[in-house]
Amino acid sequence: MPTVYITAPRDVAPEIARTLVEERLAACVNRLACDSVYRWDGEVLTDEEAVLLAKTTDERYAALRDRVVDLHPSEVPCIERFDESDILDAFGNWRAESVGEG
Amino acid sequence: MPTVYITAPRDVAPEIARTLVEERLAACVNRLACDSVYRWDGEVLTDEEAVLLAKTTDERYAALRDRVVDLHPSEVPCIERFDESDILDAFGNWRAESVGEG
Amino acid sequence: MPTVYITAPRDVAPEIARTLVEERLAACVNRLACDSVYRWDGEVLTDEEAVLLAKTTDERYAALRDRVVDLHPSEVPCIERFDESDILDAFGNWRAESVGEG
Repeated sequence: MPTVYITAPRDVAPEIARTLVEERLAACVNRLACDSVYRWDGEVLTDEEAVLLAKTTDERYAALRDRVVDLHPSEVPCIERFDESDILDAFGNWRAESVGEG
Repeated sequence: MPTVYITAPRDVAPEIARTLVEERLAACVNRLACDSVYRWDGEVLTDEEAVLLAKTTDERYAALRDRVVDLHPSEVPCIERFDESDILDAFGNWRAESVGEG
Repeated sequence: MPTVYITAPRDVAPEIARTLVEERLAACVNRLACDSVYRWDGEVLTDEEAVLLAKTTDERYAALRDRVVDLHPSEVPCIERFDESDILDAFGNWRAESVGEG
């Protein structure tokens, strides 16, 4: 099952996380505060951001990714997929039941 | 080697993390504060939680997972396994030495 | 593409993160505060640390890993590689452009 790693400005991150769950694209989203250092237009910049870890299913991954692109203020949002090699069955079942055609 | 991703209520997370290391189920656990939004019984809820990232070995993974189920207050705890594709040798060796039949 | 998971003492973590981006070893680094519990010399200890998540490329991974070993105050730094199974194309392209022979 995929965990989708997203970074976003701290002020919009809660709204993105909530929308993904409300629209049944993710069963849950863990949001963590972070500081990011990155290269942009040749300069090294630092921003206060949030990391979102969205728990979804194979079937809903593409729709989740596309929805984040819609919601995200950046032209080039960080959206990455990591797949678990094992998951507690009960949690996996709950996850599958919590997403799906809303 | 597996990193085990666990979420837990903030008040019990330190105890779970410490028990895993004391019982040689994990070599170390990184604990990060997070806010979680999730769907439960048809409602979208938000909780303050912690993410635990437990560093263990192939041999100790199943015992760690089962111990977390024992310790965790939720019926359906988030317990997921992610495997690294590379690890600094010295850290990998220390990790293997730090877990094992206590 | 690799995300490199590093833990470091909170006071040196920002400098390590910035150096990796300035030296074009990582396109960006997300830094998160964490508390770590771990076993060292037979004792269970707790420290305030930071998790660094460095976004790089296959080609730059080994150089990044070796540079972290140089910069890190610990003899046995936690340096682990996780590979994404998918990444937003635009973010992947930016990432590749941002690292490389400085």
